[in-house]
Amino acid sequence: MKKIYLIGIGPGNLDYLTVKAINTMKKADVFFLLEKRGRKEHEDLLKIRKEILKKCLNRGTYRVVTAKIPERKKGSKSYKEGVKTWRQQKAEVVTELIKSKMKDGENGAFLVWGDPSLYDGHLEILQHILKQGAVNFEYEVISGITSVQILAEKHKIPLNRIGETIVITTGRRLKEYSPAEVVNVVVLLDSYSTFKHFKDADIDIYWGGYLGTDDEILFSGKLKDVIGDLQRIRKKAKKKKGWLMDTYILRRPEGSESNE
Amino acid sequence: MKKIYLIGIGPGNLDYLTVKAINTMKKADVFFLLEKRGRKEHEDLLKIRKEILKKCLNRGTYRVVTAKIPERKKGSKSYKEGVKTWRQQKAEVVTELIKSKMKDGENGAFLVWGDPSLYDGHLEILQHILKQGAVNFEYEVISGITSVQILAEKHKIPLNRIGETIVITTGRRLKEYSPAEVVNVVVLLDSYSTFKHFKDADIDIYWGGYLGTDDEILFSGKLKDVIGDLQRIRKKAKKKKGWLMDTYILRRPEGSESNE
Repeated sequence: MKKIYLIGIGPGNLDYLTVKAINTMKKADVFFLLEKRGRKEHEDLLKIRKEILKKCLNRGTYRVVTAKIPERKKGSKSYKEGVKTWRQQKAEVVTELIKSKMKDGENGAFLVWGDPSLYDGHLEILQHILKQGAVNFEYEVISGITSVQILAEKHKIPLNRIGETIVITTGRRLKEYSPAEVVNVVVLLDSYSTFKHFKDADIDIYWGGYLGTDDEILFSGKLKDVIGDLQRIRKKAKKKKGWLMDTYILRRPEGSESNE
Repeated sequence: MKKIYLIGIGPGNLDYLTVKAINTMKKADVFFLLEKRGRKEHEDLLKIRKEILKKCLNRGTYRVVTAKIPERKKGSKSYKEGVKTWRQQKAEVVTELIKSKMKDGENGAFLVWGDPSLYDGHLEILQHILKQGAVNFEYEVISGITSVQILAEKHKIPLNRIGETIVITTGRRLKEYSPAEVVNVVVLLDSYSTFKHFKDADIDIYWGGYLGTDDEILFSGKLKDVIGDLQRIRKKAKKKKGWLMDTYILRRPEGSESNE
């Protein structure tokens, strides 16, 4: 039997790896690194993963196989359908890797940003492949520290105040919330500064870019007062590095929180 | 200047510690372990923390100070006021520890279950103490793997399906949700099996007790079909061990998810 590990590597910084993640990496015979063709972001992220392997493992004890995966086509289909089609294409790539790049009894691993359970597609791809019956294998998930956690750690804030609910969502979904519904909303995968929909509300923002890496940027304030600065920071960072990965929390300010 | 570290230790199992958590533990001169008087749960949790220290650190390189903290009084005040009073009492204990059990220039540490940013009071206590000006210190937060992540890891499920929102809440707050609002709701700190409010709805449950420990129990199924079994499992576990710490996710089943 072949075995696949989905290893959460947090922000790609050794400090945030768990003991279990490192020990699992040591068990792997082959690492599959997926990359999108010609995108600066993916070149950088590929490089970070290769560096992690070098730091944690002895040379010559593992193989690395990189594979190109297609870009998601932004077209006429709904977002969800588009993502599903894209996952099917990725499933075909992964099936081929497991079939042809691993021997029976070997362990293969994917290094997953953050945690494989939070806004990541690897787990669903593996389950999709098993359902299709194209290739058989066992698999296991290893949790990793998410950008949400590093955001809170670095700003020294809890994700929730006493007894409050936390909502974790994407930029796309954030638009569905009214300012009155915002208590603690954590936003990931937002390329469009969706926080601007709340610029007139009494809401605090705690923002982080490239969290947990050497390029980390932290910023916070009353959204309506700092929104211009934040948009400039985002633009400048994107221009300098070629891409931006950010996470933020929108929070109803202290004193105006709901009473139970 | 004194420095305090709030170190997230996940479930208290070495495997889930991050490199940063271990390195920070090595920097600490003194560990403060808070315990509630005479509760089996707290005796067990105190023991686990002492074992972690023994596993990670060399004997004689650190001090351990245990302190009794009061129980939260369940009385006439609102939940929130009750928790605030309780935090004030704990703040007084912690102030005294920092004042009298640390020398200037030393590092003190609290070992926090899960992650200090998720449903934990240490961070707010430290900030409360600084605001009061009773004692001065620097502080830093170290993220840890939460039971929410271990729940997903062990059940091999993502916390959300494509593009969906995740809600993280407590048993108390869960009652405010109608079945139709449940897409992915993660519940912590629920001593009262609040999932029973959803027993007639078409909802799946993924449940875990003592996640990430040797006593871990996993259970899942269609809530309306398995609720009796789950209640028996909870009752049995609680009786056997004297306490139960559980986490679960309620999820709208595949196929009935909302379409975008």
